[in-house]
Amino acid sequence: MTLDVAFTPTEVDKTRLQEQTVVVIDVLRATSTIVEALSNGARAVIPVATVEAARETAAGLDGDVIVCGERGGVAIDGFDLGNSPREFEPATVEGRTLVMTTSNGTDALLAAEPAAAVLVGSLLNASAAAAAAAQSDDVLLLCAGRQSRFALDDAVCAGLIARRLAERTSTTLTDGTRAALVLAGRYDEAPGGFLRHTTAAESLRGVGLLEDVAFCEMLDRHAVVPRMRNRRITL
Amino acid sequence: MTLDVAFTPTEVDKTRLQEQTVVVIDVLRATSTIVEALSNGARAVIPVATVEAARETAAGLDGDVIVCGERGGVAIDGFDLGNSPREFEPATVEGRTLVMTTSNGTDALLAAEPAAAVLVGSLLNASAAAAAAAQSDDVLLLCAGRQSRFALDDAVCAGLIARRLAERTSTTLTDGTRAALVLAGRYDEAPGGFLRHTTAAESLRGVGLLEDVAFCEMLDRHAVVPRMRNRRITL
Repeated sequence: MTLDVAFTPTEVDKTRLQEQTVVVIDVLRATSTIVEALSNGARAVIPVATVEAARETAAGLDGDVIVCGERGGVAIDGFDLGNSPREFEPATVEGRTLVMTTSNGTDALLAAEPAAAVLVGSLLNASAAAAAAAQSDDVLLLCAGRQSRFALDDAVCAGLIARRLAERTSTTLTDGTRAALVLAGRYDEAPGGFLRHTTAAESLRGVGLLEDVAFCEMLDRHAVVPRMRNRRITL
Repeated sequence: MTLDVAFTPTEVDKTRLQEQTVVVIDVLRATSTIVEALSNGARAVIPVATVEAARETAAGLDGDVIVCGERGGVAIDGFDLGNSPREFEPATVEGRTLVMTTSNGTDALLAAEPAAAVLVGSLLNASAAAAAAAQSDDVLLLCAGRQSRFALDDAVCAGLIARRLAERTSTTLTDGTRAALVLAGRYDEAPGGFLRHTTAAESLRGVGLLEDVAFCEMLDRHAVVPRMRNRRITL
């Protein structure tokens, strides 16, 4: 297997994407929230790029729809929910379709759209995501990053998924993968706390959402792998 | 000091660049070659973006000029030298001005141009580069990367320079810096060999230039810090 890690969507080689299985990772918080929401019974998540597109998409959908997401880490005016995985409880999301727009995660999902397969990964489902990606022989772990910059939370998660893949199958590594594997050691050293020392966590602390950080750090809380087809993410 | 590491030029925040001291790093091989050439008596290095610009710039200069660089790792047809630091010996470069174009390093230097100060870093001058950058309170270690992708050789070098800065002064770190500091451990584990396991080294092996890899890995071979002013790099 060729196993690559891109630390931001700008690193994606568009000429190769169509042959790749891409695992999109935005630990704090979009992909953690998607994994949590679908595990708790949401029917589907539709990622969109802008606040306007979210409103329009939601207006055009039949049935029980929740509009959610964030800008600057906080819930968007008039939306039903923010981007905190703790909000997406069974009683709230069961049977509903979520339309979501976030600062980095939904853009990364949309960047991955041309890929052969698009999976959703996070610490919450790292082992399951690795098992699903192991079916492919060309895998890209795509970190959402922060505003086109490297984000440590995503890189460490990519490293943990890469390690699980490397344990299962023989892999050809890129520099990004080699680095992510080293950075995965950060999680091992402090499983209950490494995330706190990231720029994303500092930013969440600033808006009173530090509890999300501990939540998103729960490794393998779920054994599900959301998959995006036709811009619709389901289990 | 604010201490940031960008793993590719696309990560540079152009709105902040003018206040920053930038250390440009392309271990394999552009910045190593620049450090070696200037240490060996070259008068200046002028980085340019294209092969055509190199020929034109050289034609417009008075005095002893060497045109050098690479595409695909190998010397460019009609150029005096390639991009192997071993070629830039005193007898060859003393008193001469070099016009250089490479696949990644010269682009990174040009991307850094608007910065308050632009320094040239490599493993060959890591400690000297750190000492020079320590004069600033806003430092960006800018990795050239490979074709807008993460490169492990540059990231490890950035980590070694960051560690030296963090030892000297109190630093505010970004996620990129935190990651680079962890990756610097790669050098410590295998000072005589980590570079060999990078994509850049594999590519140099492919064109018969593996000896450059061991050369570029010599930590603190020189105590010089090239600086770029008006697109001209001198000591």
